[in-house]
Amino acid sequence: MTQVEIGRGKSGRRAYSLDEIGLVPSRRTRDPEEVSIAWQIDAYRFELPLVVCPMDSVVSPRTAIEIGRLGGLAVIDLEGLWTRYEDPEPLLAEIAELDEPAATLRLQAIYSEPIKEELIGRRIEEIRGAGVTTAARLSPQRTVRYYKTVIDAGVDIFVIRGTTVSAEHVSGQAEPLNLKRFIYELDVPVIVGGCATHTAALHLMRTGAAGVLAGFGGGSGHTTAAVLGVAVPMATVIADVAAARRDYLDESGGRYVHVLADGGMTRSGDITKAVACGADAVMVGSPFARAAQAPGRGYHWGSEAHHPELPRGARVKVGTIGTLEQILHGPSTVADGSMNLMGALRRSMATAGYSDLKEFQRVEVVVAPSSRPRG
Amino acid sequence: MTQVEIGRGKSGRRAYSLDEIGLVPSRRTRDPEEVSIAWQIDAYRFELPLVVCPMDSVVSPRTAIEIGRLGGLAVIDLEGLWTRYEDPEPLLAEIAELDEPAATLRLQAIYSEPIKEELIGRRIEEIRGAGVTTAARLSPQRTVRYYKTVIDAGVDIFVIRGTTVSAEHVSGQAEPLNLKRFIYELDVPVIVGGCATHTAALHLMRTGAAGVLAGFGGGSGHTTAAVLGVAVPMATVIADVAAARRDYLDESGGRYVHVLADGGMTRSGDITKAVACGADAVMVGSPFARAAQAPGRGYHWGSEAHHPELPRGARVKVGTIGTLEQILHGPSTVADGSMNLMGALRRSMATAGYSDLKEFQRVEVVVAPSSRPRG
Amino acid sequence: MTQVEIGRGKSGRRAYSLDEIGLVPSRRTRDPEEVSIAWQIDAYRFELPLVVCPMDSVVSPRTAIEIGRLGGLAVIDLEGLWTRYEDPEPLLAEIAELDEPAATLRLQAIYSEPIKEELIGRRIEEIRGAGVTTAARLSPQRTVRYYKTVIDAGVDIFVIRGTTVSAEHVSGQAEPLNLKRFIYELDVPVIVGGCATHTAALHLMRTGAAGVLAGFGGGSGHTTAAVLGVAVPMATVIADVAAARRDYLDESGGRYVHVLADGGMTRSGDITKAVACGADAVMVGSPFARAAQAPGRGYHWGSEAHHPELPRGARVKVGTIGTLEQILHGPSTVADGSMNLMGALRRSMATAGYSDLKEFQRVEVVVAPSSRPRG
Amino acid sequence: MTQVEIGRGKSGRRAYSLDEIGLVPSRRTRDPEEVSIAWQIDAYRFELPLVVCPMDSVVSPRTAIEIGRLGGLAVIDLEGLWTRYEDPEPLLAEIAELDEPAATLRLQAIYSEPIKEELIGRRIEEIRGAGVTTAARLSPQRTVRYYKTVIDAGVDIFVIRGTTVSAEHVSGQAEPLNLKRFIYELDVPVIVGGCATHTAALHLMRTGAAGVLAGFGGGSGHTTAAVLGVAVPMATVIADVAAARRDYLDESGGRYVHVLADGGMTRSGDITKAVACGADAVMVGSPFARAAQAPGRGYHWGSEAHHPELPRGARVKVGTIGTLEQILHGPSTVADGSMNLMGALRRSMATAGYSDLKEFQRVEVVVAPSSRPRG
Repeated sequence: MTQVEIGRGKSGRRAYSLDEIGLVPSRRTRDPEEVSIAWQIDAYRFELPLVVCPMDSVVSPRTAIEIGRLGGLAVIDLEGLWTRYEDPEPLLAEIAELDEPAATLRLQAIYSEPIKEELIGRRIEEIRGAGVTTAARLSPQRTVRYYKTVIDAGVDIFVIRGTTVSAEHVSGQAEPLNLKRFIYELDVPVIVGGCATHTAALHLMRTGAAGVLAGFGGGSGHTTAAVLGVAVPMATVIADVAAARRDYLDESGGRYVHVLADGGMTRSGDITKAVACGADAVMVGSPFARAAQAPGRGYHWGSEAHHPELPRGARVKVGTIGTLEQILHGPSTVADGSMNLMGALRRSMATAGYSDLKEFQRVEVVVAPSSRPRG
Repeated sequence: MTQVEIGRGKSGRRAYSLDEIGLVPSRRTRDPEEVSIAWQIDAYRFELPLVVCPMDSVVSPRTAIEIGRLGGLAVIDLEGLWTRYEDPEPLLAEIAELDEPAATLRLQAIYSEPIKEELIGRRIEEIRGAGVTTAARLSPQRTVRYYKTVIDAGVDIFVIRGTTVSAEHVSGQAEPLNLKRFIYELDVPVIVGGCATHTAALHLMRTGAAGVLAGFGGGSGHTTAAVLGVAVPMATVIADVAAARRDYLDESGGRYVHVLADGGMTRSGDITKAVACGADAVMVGSPFARAAQAPGRGYHWGSEAHHPELPRGARVKVGTIGTLEQILHGPSTVADGSMNLMGALRRSMATAGYSDLKEFQRVEVVVAPSSRPRG
Repeated sequence: MTQVEIGRGKSGRRAYSLDEIGLVPSRRTRDPEEVSIAWQIDAYRFELPLVVCPMDSVVSPRTAIEIGRLGGLAVIDLEGLWTRYEDPEPLLAEIAELDEPAATLRLQAIYSEPIKEELIGRRIEEIRGAGVTTAARLSPQRTVRYYKTVIDAGVDIFVIRGTTVSAEHVSGQAEPLNLKRFIYELDVPVIVGGCATHTAALHLMRTGAAGVLAGFGGGSGHTTAAVLGVAVPMATVIADVAAARRDYLDESGGRYVHVLADGGMTRSGDITKAVACGADAVMVGSPFARAAQAPGRGYHWGSEAHHPELPRGARVKVGTIGTLEQILHGPSTVADGSMNLMGALRRSMATAGYSDLKEFQRVEVVVAPSSRPRG
Repeated sequence: MTQVEIGRGKSGRRAYSLDEIGLVPSRRTRDPEEVSIAWQIDAYRFELPLVVCPMDSVVSPRTAIEIGRLGGLAVIDLEGLWTRYEDPEPLLAEIAELDEPAATLRLQAIYSEPIKEELIGRRIEEIRGAGVTTAARLSPQRTVRYYKTVIDAGVDIFVIRGTTVSAEHVSGQAEPLNLKRFIYELDVPVIVGGCATHTAALHLMRTGAAGVLAGFGGGSGHTTAAVLGVAVPMATVIADVAAARRDYLDESGGRYVHVLADGGMTRSGDITKAVACGADAVMVGSPFARAAQAPGRGYHWGSEAHHPELPRGARVKVGTIGTLEQILHGPSTVADGSMNLMGALRRSMATAGYSDLKEFQRVEVVVAPSSRPRG
C-alpha cells in the first residue's frame, strides 16, 4: 500500500475513484451475445448482476416487480414512504413539485411521519405476490424492532443498510444490534453494509452475511464528504473489500461472501469498472430514477436527504429518458452511458475479451485521471 | 518527507489541502450522543472545539456573547470597526450595500479611521459583562501599544494574530515585539499565529503560548496565493504543527500547546478533517457570516481585504441561512455542510468509531483528490 | 512500468494522455522549410504523415480525392452512407439540420438502411479514377463478406478498423475472421486496428499488416469511457504500440510495421505529440469536419454514434473554418491549432531541432498536467 | 530527476508550473520597508527586478520612458508597429475596436507592412532622449540585418528574443546568425532567449550573453501548447536555467549570467514564485497592458498572434485597472495580484523572512496543486 505523507506524523493511502481508472482490452475479443452476466447469491439466481437501491425515488412495489421480471433485484426501503403512508403517491407527486430552497425542509416533514408496522408486511407481500425475488431493507437501528415482521411476510433477501454499518457498534444507551448473533439465527440470506475497508468488511463477513455492500451508498446527490469529511473513493473500496472476500474465503474454509459495489455509480462505464475492481454485483440507484415508471417522477433522493438534524444530500433533478426495460436492456437512444446498462456491460466484457463476470474481475486496468468520462 | 524535484537544484515537498483527503471509518461505530467534543485550553473549558475568527463580518460584542452561550469562543478584533467607531452599525449596513468595483476602495477608506483606545476596553467589558469567556485579538504590530488596555479590561484569552507571526521578527526601525518576553510576563493565556511549518510553530510554542494558530487564516475570499505566492495547504500545515506540539511536549517536559487550525474551513467536513490531521480546535469564520445575527449582513471579509496598499481579499457575498444556534447545533435544513457544524462533527466521529477529539486525531485518512466535496 | 496500487489485490499502470505531456526543444533549432514530413508505407509515398478517418462527416469520394491531391490519404468508410445510399447528399443535409434530442434516434434510422454491394465497388472506382491512392475501410465483422468486391474494385490500401480489433476473436456462432490467414493471402497492404496495448499490437503485427492503428479511434464526441469504461490514454497507447513495432522488427528480422495514432486528436499540437510518442503517421477526423468541403456541413460523428443498440458518441457541431487546403497547409487565420496542421508539425519539428519524422520520435517530452492546452 | 514512464520506451520528466507551487515562510519575518528588490545587470542598476516585454500592446516609446522612470526596464519591439508605421496610434486604436472572428486576419494584414529601417533608429533615440536605460528587441532572423542600426542609435541593452532561440541554428538557405561570434563582438550587453532547458541555456550562456530568457515568452493568450505541442511549465524551466547559471559560473570562472523568467506571469504571486525558483529578474507583459497608459487600450497581444501562416495566440481583452505607477507600486485597489506588483514582492519577501532577491531565491517551496490561486 502506497502511504503518502500528508504532514509529519500523519500519512494516508492514495485512494482511487472509478473515474480515475480505465479498462484495458486483452489480446482477445468476443461476441457480446456469448458473454454471460448471470449472478447467483445464495439460492437466488439472477440474469443480471444488478441490485436496485432502496430509495423511494426508484423502488416502489410496482417497479420492484418489474425490475425482478427484467432479471434484476430491487430492494424496497422499509423506512421510506411506502411504510409511512398508506398511499404515498400524492406525496411523491408533491416532492416532484417542490421548489429548491424549501425542498429539504418539506422532505424532513414528510419523512417525520412514523413507520406503520402493518405496512411493512403488506409491501413485502405485494412484491412477493408477483412471483419475483423479494428483498427489503432496514437500517441497523430499526432491525431489532421490525425484523420479525419482515421475515414473517416472507422476504427472500434481507438487506441491512446504512452509510456505515459495523459489526461492532458501541452504544451505552440501548442494546445495540449484535449482527453476528442476529444474522446466524436468521433463515434468510442477509446483505449488509456499507463499509469501506478491508478490516470492516472482514468483520461483516464473519457475521455470516451472504453479501457485503462496499461503499457508503448515498444517492448521486449525496454530500457525505462535505458534511462529515468521510470519503473513500470507490475503486479502492471495492478492491479492498474484494480482497477481504478472498481472505475470508480462506479463513472460513470456503464461504464466498458476495461483494456488492454500492455508491455513486451513474453510468454503465461505472458498472463495468466496479466489476473490474472485484465486485460480484452492483447496487445502483440514480439511473433508474430516470425511468418513465420511476416513483420519483424525474427526481432522485436518498434517505440521507431527509435526515431531521443533519441532511447530507439533496433531491436532484435527473429527468426521464426511457422505460425501465430500455435502461436495463436497450435499445439506447442516448450516448452517455445511462441507457442499456446491461448491454454495455456485455459489450465491454466482449471488447475486453472476457466471457463471464468472475473472469472479468481480472481485466487489466490503467490509472488515468485524464480519461474521466465525458457525457 | 517526500521531496519532489521541481527543477535542477530546486525541490519542494508535496503538500496537501483538506479537500484532497477523506476520513476512513474504523471497524467500530458509535452513537453520536455518546461522543464528546469538549475542549479545554488553560483553565477554560468549552463544550465545543470552536473558536470564531476575529472578523468584523462575524464577531460583534453581541454575537461574541451569543457564541459563548452556545458553547464556543468568539474573538473580537480590536483593530476592526468596533474600536474605530463608537457605533459601527451604519458602516456595516453601508458595506453590505456597496457595489462590487468600488467595494475595496470604500473598505480602505472606512478602515482608515484611527483606533480609539477607550473603545478597546469598552468592547471587552461589554462581552465580559455577559459572563462568557472573553477573547480579543491584536496584530503583532499593535500588541506592544495596546496590550495593557486589553489586560486591564479583563480579557480572559489574548489572541495575537497576523497572516504570519514569527517568534523572530527582524526590524531596524522600531523595537519589535519580543514574543517570548511578552508572553511569559503576561498573566492571561495567549493564542498566537498563524504559522505554517514545524519550525515556526516550535518557535512560537517556546514563547509560552497556550495555543498556536496553524495556517494563515484569511477570510474565505482571501487571495494570498495570487498576491504573495505564499501558500501551504492546510492538511499538511496542521499535521506539521501537531508534530511540533508533540516535539515540544517532550522538549518542555510536558507542556501541551494547543493547535488551532485557522484558514479556509467553510464546511463541517473541513472541521472534521482538521481534527483528523491533529488540530485540538478550529478557528472558523465564514460559516458564521451566514448567520441571521452576523454583523456582516450576508457579506464576509477579513482584515486583509482593506489593507491600504495591498489588499489581499475581497468582500464576498455568503448569504444568510439560519441562526447562530442552527449553524452550530442544527437542525440543519441544507445539505452542504454549512449548518449544524457541531452535530456533523459528532456524527463523523461516531460513524468513524471514535469517542473524543484526542482519539479522533488518530483516525485513518486517505489521499483522494477525486473526492473533493461537492456542495 | 509504474504499477499503482488501486486497492489490495488490484493494481494498474499510470497511463498518460497527450494533454498531459509537452515537447521540449533540443539545443538546436532549424528552418521549418528544411524539415521533411514525408511518409511512406509499403509502396505508397505521401508528402504528409496524415490519414483521414473513415467517417461520413469527413470523407466522401470527392473529399478523398482532394485530400489525396493535397498530399494526404483519406479512407472511405464502406459501411457508411456512401454504400447504403445511391445519393447520400440529401441525408447528409438532413443530419446537419437535426435537433439535438432526436438526433441519435434519426441517425440510427438512417444507418439502418442495408449496405449495397454494388456501391462498394463504385465508390472505390470513383476515387481511384481520379488517380489518387485509394483506401477503404470495413469492420472486422463484414470483411469476410465484402473484401473480394473491395479488392476487385482496385483498392490500394485496405483498412480493417473497429473500436478494438484483436488477432484472436472468439466466436461460437460464425466462422470469425482469421486475420492472419486473411492478410497474408491478400495482395494489398492492410492497416488494422484499433488496439491499445503492446501485446495486442504485437499480435496484430504478426498477421502481416502493413500498419496498425494505435488507439480506439472514435469521433471527438465519442463516449466509450462513459459507456464501456474502456479507456487507455493516447500517449501511453502510442508509446506501447511503438515499442511493439521495435520488438516485432527484431522478432521478424526486419519487418517495419507502421504505427498510426488513431483517436481524439483535434489540434496540431496533438499530432506533434503523437509523433513524439512514436507514431509514424496519424489518423485524424474532426479537424477535417470543419472544412468547407466536408460532407458533414459543420457536424461530425463516427460510426459509434449510430449503433442501433448502444450508441457511444454524439453528432457534435464543429463549425466550418476554412478550406481543406487551409486546414492542411494554411495560411491559418485562427490560433487554436485547428488550421495549418502540417505547417504546425513542420514548425514544431524545426523549433525542437529535428529534420524528419523518424528523428522527431525521439524528441524529449515532459509530463506536465498543468500545461493542458488552451484554445 | 524524476523520470516518469509514459509508455514502454518513452519516458519524460515531471515538470511543474508556477501555479503548482507555493512559498513557505521561514521562521523569521521582516519589515517590508527593509527589503531590497534592486537588480543590477552589467553596468545597469534598477530599483526593480522587472523588465517589460517587447509587445506593442504594452511598450511604446512613451510607456518605455515612464517605466524607466518608475524604476523598471521596458524593451521596445523593433519588429512591431513602431517600426512599421510612422504613426501607429490609429492602428492601435483600430485593433482595440476589432470584432472577434476577424481580429486575427486584420492583425495579420496590419503587421504585413514592411519594417522601415529609419524608424528603428528613431524609436531608440526617442527613448534614449528621455534619459532612461534603453532596451530594444529583434528576432534572431532579423538581427544580422538590423543590428548595426540598433547599435548606432545608442541602445543600452540589446534583446534577441524568439519563442525558442538556440545557440546552434541549422539552416541550409542563408547564413544563420552565429550568436557566439555576434555577441562577443558587440559592445552592448545582450539578453537572449527564450529557452527551456539546462542544456539550451548553458549554450546560450556560452555565447557571452549578459542575460538569458527562461521560458517561451508568449502573451497571456498564447497557444503554443495547442498549436505546436511544445510546452515546459515555468517553475521547472526557471529552476533548470538557474542551475545552468550556477554551472556556467563555475565553468567560466566567475561569469554570472542573469536569468530572466519570461512567460505567462500575470499576477504578483507569479513573480514572487519565479524568483523563488531562481530568477534574477522577470520579463512581464500582460499586467502592464492593463495600465491606463498602455498602447493596447485594454487589449493585449504578442507577436505570435499575427504570424502570417500560423498564428499562435489571440488578442485578449484585459481591461484597464489603473496607472502604470499603481500597477508597479500601488496603492492597489484590487485583490487579485494585478496591482502593486513590486509592493507585493517586497511583502512576500518580508513575510517569508528574506531581505534581498538573491537570498529569496532560496526560500522553501511546496508542491501544492490544490492551492492554484484564485482571482
